[in-house]
Amino acid sequence: MVNFTNIETMKMIDIFRFTVLAFCVFLPVEVKSQLPAETVVVRGFFNEALTSYEAYHNLEWLCKNTAGRICGTPEAAEAVEFTHQLMNNMSLDAVWLQPIMVKSWKRGDKEEARIVSEKFGTVSVPSCALGWSIGTGDPGLSAGVVEVKSLDELKKKSSKEIEGRIVFFNQPMKQTNLATFSSYGEAVWQRTNGPVEAARLGAVGCVIRSMSIGTDDFPHTGITRYDEGVKPIPALTISTKAADLLSSYLALDSKLFFFFRTTCLTGQDVPSSNVIGEIKGSEFPDEIITIGGHLDAWDISEGAHDDGGGCIQSIEVLRLFQKAGIRPKHTIRAVMFMDEEVAQRGGQEYAKQASIKGEKHIAALESDRGVFQPKALAVTGNPEQMKNLAAWQPLFDPYDIKLTSGGGGADVGPLKNFYPTILFMGIIPEDQRYFNLHHAASDTFEQVDRREMQMGAAGIASLIYLYDKYGL
Amino acid sequence: MVNFTNIETMKMIDIFRFTVLAFCVFLPVEVKSQLPAETVVVRGFFNEALTSYEAYHNLEWLCKNTAGRICGTPEAAEAVEFTHQLMNNMSLDAVWLQPIMVKSWKRGDKEEARIVSEKFGTVSVPSCALGWSIGTGDPGLSAGVVEVKSLDELKKKSSKEIEGRIVFFNQPMKQTNLATFSSYGEAVWQRTNGPVEAARLGAVGCVIRSMSIGTDDFPHTGITRYDEGVKPIPALTISTKAADLLSSYLALDSKLFFFFRTTCLTGQDVPSSNVIGEIKGSEFPDEIITIGGHLDAWDISEGAHDDGGGCIQSIEVLRLFQKAGIRPKHTIRAVMFMDEEVAQRGGQEYAKQASIKGEKHIAALESDRGVFQPKALAVTGNPEQMKNLAAWQPLFDPYDIKLTSGGGGADVGPLKNFYPTILFMGIIPEDQRYFNLHHAASDTFEQVDRREMQMGAAGIASLIYLYDKYGL
Repeated sequence: MVNFTNIETMKMIDIFRFTVLAFCVFLPVEVKSQLPAETVVVRGFFNEALTSYEAYHNLEWLCKNTAGRICGTPEAAEAVEFTHQLMNNMSLDAVWLQPIMVKSWKRGDKEEARIVSEKFGTVSVPSCALGWSIGTGDPGLSAGVVEVKSLDELKKKSSKEIEGRIVFFNQPMKQTNLATFSSYGEAVWQRTNGPVEAARLGAVGCVIRSMSIGTDDFPHTGITRYDEGVKPIPALTISTKAADLLSSYLALDSKLFFFFRTTCLTGQDVPSSNVIGEIKGSEFPDEIITIGGHLDAWDISEGAHDDGGGCIQSIEVLRLFQKAGIRPKHTIRAVMFMDEEVAQRGGQEYAKQASIKGEKHIAALESDRGVFQPKALAVTGNPEQMKNLAAWQPLFDPYDIKLTSGGGGADVGPLKNFYPTILFMGIIPEDQRYFNLHHAASDTFEQVDRREMQMGAAGIASLIYLYDKYGL
Repeated sequence: MVNFTNIETMKMIDIFRFTVLAFCVFLPVEVKSQLPAETVVVRGFFNEALTSYEAYHNLEWLCKNTAGRICGTPEAAEAVEFTHQLMNNMSLDAVWLQPIMVKSWKRGDKEEARIVSEKFGTVSVPSCALGWSIGTGDPGLSAGVVEVKSLDELKKKSSKEIEGRIVFFNQPMKQTNLATFSSYGEAVWQRTNGPVEAARLGAVGCVIRSMSIGTDDFPHTGITRYDEGVKPIPALTISTKAADLLSSYLALDSKLFFFFRTTCLTGQDVPSSNVIGEIKGSEFPDEIITIGGHLDAWDISEGAHDDGGGCIQSIEVLRLFQKAGIRPKHTIRAVMFMDEEVAQRGGQEYAKQASIKGEKHIAALESDRGVFQPKALAVTGNPEQMKNLAAWQPLFDPYDIKLTSGGGGADVGPLKNFYPTILFMGIIPEDQRYFNLHHAASDTFEQVDRREMQMGAAGIASLIYLYDKYGL
């Protein structure tokens, strides 16, 4: 049973928020006079999003039929085909594939890892190779372990301490940050740069604590990078629970060995595509607003929150415009970027082709922080633009969405090279759960709540609608 | 990979929020001068909550070892024992069981339901008896079906249309409400009053669409009530997907039959307990602040969000006070109420005993809306109190928690009968996911995010700390 006092309260809050709109006295004149009408349009986007199951079912199809769609795989090709068909069936003004070449890499099927301790015996641990790691090959690799929790700690070690051994990077994501993206930002150096830093000192392999905010049994993969001139070494990630276990064993048995086998192989570049659909602008068809997510996802994951959901939201925004019968003034594009996770070639090619074709890009929004309940919509505006943005806040108050500064991302970022004044936008969802799932097998369709994802899509549609109509 | 521009933005927001505290110029003098110090205390609660796994592990134990702990069951007794031991091990000033008598009811093990249509064949559907429904008995019940979507629609039917048939209540929870508790409040009459209204018109049974905001295969149970003078009829709920299916079949085959068998039995009242632990106040030990959740959960559910999480949060608040070395001025109690789901006897007895013993209750907070990310903390204060509450808002801004009006609940509610001036408080978490899980087998421990639950506990601790110290 639930608390009826609070139900009434929530209703009151809803009513209150709508009423507030009538009393907004400090807004620019044009926006002020438009607010009542725009309240109805925005509410229309949300009503349609909340009652529709189309995007949710499309996300399910994408997750269940193209799981593991890292660039260069047949699953990635299937995801291109699916979203291409999806947009082809929407009566958009144009839908096309934009060819790119992507790197390719295969995990191999012989992954295993274990702690071998005279004191504690042999314990297998959940693990996987980091993306683009070299493999150990069939025989595997066995060596003593040096644990470090920071780059400083590693750098203070002598080559003698590291040579011939496995470096175990074990800096947990900080729990006391309120923004889990900050914790990720602080800890992810281990995954991207740990192996090359360990190799510089003569390590033979590298084991890295998974970049998870939770304590669980899922290994979380992600890209690692090698430097030319430093011999690459095999890099493995183990689950956070396994990392805690290994650390506790090491404290009592510094002579233990770690064994792992990975048979991953890097292949030739292969062709792939960005998938693009657009509604032509009625007044400024040559001025383009891009909304995008990335279609690729790690090979061990359904990629529901990262970033199938962001792709499906982008398509949903176009559907919401169509359903509302709104033809935008500017051209609005949904772009499924290929290869965000590895080399961002989709984003680079999209920007390059835009420049070659002489397109005019005025704004770009990327949804790549999961599709949880939206907390904020963000714009990288100048002070004048941020003031204008603030005038729209009352329209978003009923949905508990703040308008704030921020935006951009790895895929739309390259547009800045060709369009220095482009306005970047973004969506910031609740993030407490995101890094439990990020780059892991736990990022499944079942972790997505339909209403939360749809509120995100409706929020993006509302912001884009207002920007398209009034500018900033 | 993630968007580093946004990471920086989030950090900036964190820094900005803390900085804002320094510039709060419109606050009452006492609070204003205290804010910098209280910022540290509040941050301390959050830091401890976010780094501790104790409450989370306790919730796991409760969910996995006392699933189905509806009042009167051995599982409920086990939950009493567990939380009693838990608080006994915390060095609290007092821990005790408060005896109550509760109703008892057993589902029986022969539940089944199917649609029998000449046109579509026979289709089994996910179902369960409503709580405290009578059973059909072993032979089951088979009858034609009349579908209604509102009470008005039912009342317009003649007895002749209803007599001897099964009434199928099929009003979906409204998707366009932003507050899902509002949708629940609007639709739950079908479950609580549908069977008795159908029986008045001569129905032989009642099938009710599950109170779920999602479209899925989980039946969601919950209490139903019979009126004296109206012959009780068996009442069954079917999943939302099954309800959609039945409705679509009925549209094409109005002569189909519905068969269901339920063997539930209502038993004698049995003894049970509320579980109470307290930290004695240093200045006003006789003035009591209650924080509570309900320990019982539906028999088909682990009761993670409803309301194991609320219980564990209440205990966690005491632990956070202990860990911070804060002895409150007033006595603070954590109460695990028994029997919220059926007859609220735990809440009634708690209030009655308080009155008998001449206790002075000044405030009570109930956490019974799930343990998702906290959006707001609420107080049912008068305008003066709400103004004072607003002065604390800067302390909660870093955590995205609003201070608002509301509070109370089914368990603390009866205190109002004896303490008319008692201040009710509450916590309002994100609610988009709650009614996917509510009263169903899907409400598992795995649906709880540790950080979200812990942020709720820290939020409650902070509000109670401020209220205990400054009053409202």
